[in-house]
Amino acid sequence: MTDQMAPDDDKDASRVPPNAVAAVDAARHWDRVMAMAGFGGFTDPDGHEGVNRPCLSPDDRAARRLLIDWGRAIGLAPSIDALGNLFLRHAGTEPGLAPVLTGSHMDSQPSGGRFDGIWGVLAGLEAIQALREAGVATRRPIELVAWTNEEGGRFAPGCMGSMAYAGYRPRDAWDGVTDGAGIRFGDALAEHLALEADLPRRPLGVAEGGPAPFAYVEAHIEQGPRLEAEGLDIGIVTGIQGSRWFGVEITGRSDHAGTTPVGLRQDAVQDMLRAIAALNALMADPADVLRFTVGRIEVAPNSSNSVAGQARFTIDCRHPDEAVLKARGDAVAGVVQAAMRHCRATVSERFTAAPSEFHPMVIEAVAGAAAAQGLKAARLPSGAFHDAQFLVPLCPTGMIFIPCRGGVSHHPAEYATPAALANGARVLAHVLAELANR
Amino acid sequence: MTDQMAPDDDKDASRVPPNAVAAVDAARHWDRVMAMAGFGGFTDPDGHEGVNRPCLSPDDRAARRLLIDWGRAIGLAPSIDALGNLFLRHAGTEPGLAPVLTGSHMDSQPSGGRFDGIWGVLAGLEAIQALREAGVATRRPIELVAWTNEEGGRFAPGCMGSMAYAGYRPRDAWDGVTDGAGIRFGDALAEHLALEADLPRRPLGVAEGGPAPFAYVEAHIEQGPRLEAEGLDIGIVTGIQGSRWFGVEITGRSDHAGTTPVGLRQDAVQDMLRAIAALNALMADPADVLRFTVGRIEVAPNSSNSVAGQARFTIDCRHPDEAVLKARGDAVAGVVQAAMRHCRATVSERFTAAPSEFHPMVIEAVAGAAAAQGLKAARLPSGAFHDAQFLVPLCPTGMIFIPCRGGVSHHPAEYATPAALANGARVLAHVLAELANR
Repeated sequence: MTDQMAPDDDKDASRVPPNAVAAVDAARHWDRVMAMAGFGGFTDPDGHEGVNRPCLSPDDRAARRLLIDWGRAIGLAPSIDALGNLFLRHAGTEPGLAPVLTGSHMDSQPSGGRFDGIWGVLAGLEAIQALREAGVATRRPIELVAWTNEEGGRFAPGCMGSMAYAGYRPRDAWDGVTDGAGIRFGDALAEHLALEADLPRRPLGVAEGGPAPFAYVEAHIEQGPRLEAEGLDIGIVTGIQGSRWFGVEITGRSDHAGTTPVGLRQDAVQDMLRAIAALNALMADPADVLRFTVGRIEVAPNSSNSVAGQARFTIDCRHPDEAVLKARGDAVAGVVQAAMRHCRATVSERFTAAPSEFHPMVIEAVAGAAAAQGLKAARLPSGAFHDAQFLVPLCPTGMIFIPCRGGVSHHPAEYATPAALANGARVLAHVLAELANR
Repeated sequence: MTDQMAPDDDKDASRVPPNAVAAVDAARHWDRVMAMAGFGGFTDPDGHEGVNRPCLSPDDRAARRLLIDWGRAIGLAPSIDALGNLFLRHAGTEPGLAPVLTGSHMDSQPSGGRFDGIWGVLAGLEAIQALREAGVATRRPIELVAWTNEEGGRFAPGCMGSMAYAGYRPRDAWDGVTDGAGIRFGDALAEHLALEADLPRRPLGVAEGGPAPFAYVEAHIEQGPRLEAEGLDIGIVTGIQGSRWFGVEITGRSDHAGTTPVGLRQDAVQDMLRAIAALNALMADPADVLRFTVGRIEVAPNSSNSVAGQARFTIDCRHPDEAVLKARGDAVAGVVQAAMRHCRATVSERFTAAPSEFHPMVIEAVAGAAAAQGLKAARLPSGAFHDAQFLVPLCPTGMIFIPCRGGVSHHPAEYATPAALANGARVLAHVLAELANR
């Protein structure tokens, strides 16, 4: 899944008029991304310009209104559903056909960057505008979507909008979820919908009887270092890797560090080290595809002159292959227990998400577009979660990645170059034209 | 230093009349320890009766006044010095001779037990009372001392009273130290001295020209598990082990746990594991005398789905042999640096205390007393700090340990049996009579 594309893989490029791709305006596109970064924008102590734009906040609403204004200015029709998912519709020449859907999200992490999510929405706008300005008609409608609450930074979990759209959860599933100020998601959503009452209301996706899209394609920064490290322009995303998350709690006995012989201790830190070392061996992957992370550690009493009586740590394990994920994940508890020498351990699985495989039609459309434009591309799975994974059961789905500096995301230092954004928007324009004419 | 005493090691027992030792009243002694536990006493959620008696608090003052009352009732003369160290003097038959000093401290940890410190003071009172009731005169005076602020729980550092007494620091060294409520130590001390103005004031030890004691002996619970584990009654303390404390800070780079290949990470948790594993090898001691502890760990950002960008941990290393402490401690920084694979480490030494060796005269007096009373005893170093270490440069010094349940201290579950307390008081009575007649 990491083979680089050769230019002659291009099969569909001939269907897309070159002037549509050429109509992508790199400067306009960049300016719009920067304008959106003003909603919730801040400068961190290192001088990085970050974004804090919580879902359904006034900044989120202002950003959405600007998007609507930009869309209307080029003839796109807005509508909104019961979850606040916002759509801007480019009409096709055959209105009865299922639309091609593209977009991403507009909310950010509390200390997030200027590109994660919002770029995918603006890339969709730029691509549609380019098609329209080039006079390229499409048989199918193209709908641009901004999903509500992908990040989960204000209301957990994330991906509420796409999950409800796909019927994965009922529309009122999270009404009782509260943010840090005690505000219920249901109330924040009702307030938002009341303020957006001027927008036409549409059914909540297939959950309310709406038609399934013909295809879904989402553009996003990679949020990983690979494209940049390998000098690539475009990531042809093959799917979203699966995840299994565990919590481990090790209980020993706290003792005086000066008086208790090492041989008589039940030191939770030392047994934690043995457990993680054993897990490192279990999770070893010479191909470096499996992602194994111990990112959170808490020790009690956490005093320099007390032997630790308790240690807790988390395990985050991800792989695109469900069989690998099952084999390694199922072995976690046994490996931890076998590593205990003096303490007791409990292992609990906190979260699991099966791998999502994207559809060959979309994957090959992205590969073909990159090749046709002479961009260096490679196939890779997404390491992060995205709204796209909830579209997989509904319609052929895929994603387009562009490189981001150092692989950094969810941080004010998150950055992608204007050229990288334009490359992504051009590939997306190509893919949309190609799919919307099928 | 761990050889068990044989009964025929008893050389000095003949100097001490058996009726003095027999006059130790186990029930009275226990009742006094329990009465003192009422000052600051509380019951924790597990039903353990703990003590929270901060230095120079109303509870500390009330406990001191009760001690003075008990001492006066048997003819002991109180006095107090500029640090608030409280003395109760039993007159010798030759008043010009330097006194034998015994005692400990009366303050506790915030969530402390009923025995740490206070028992050593009450054991001294019981021992002196037993000598007096048995009609045993001593050539030298015997002074009972309650040192101010050994624990350092309210005002850091601990051992202020004994350090100032020994001239280790000037009397006003800690005046500006504040407690959690912002109260200055100097002000708390001035208030205390004003409230105790009825007590005769004495010079602050050798620091203010007072005579050095002839000897100092301190009784204390072991605060470790060895005596109980080996079925021993008395610990003949040979010295206080030395300590070296370090802080290690490992800096890598925080990354997305799902998107960053393991091979491209600078994972501070993983390099911390390597460092601690290497330190375990450095600190390995088949004799199990060296105490090596990693008790405190902090990870940042400490998020389950983020690779750790920073990890900090502490090293507490103790050994009675200064050469061992030097060799192992000096190797710490190099071992940590050599263990780094992807991150940078900084190692800083935070605290160092050289080992203290107690005096053969006191050590043998304790050994002889235990043997004469048929008690099972062994020689061992103290793993914890005590006021006694600051007396070492002034006069022959030693300590007597008794077993405590599970080695637990600084916790409401701290416990020693009435029989263990009585054993300790009897050995102390024997030792005081022996030393005060030299």
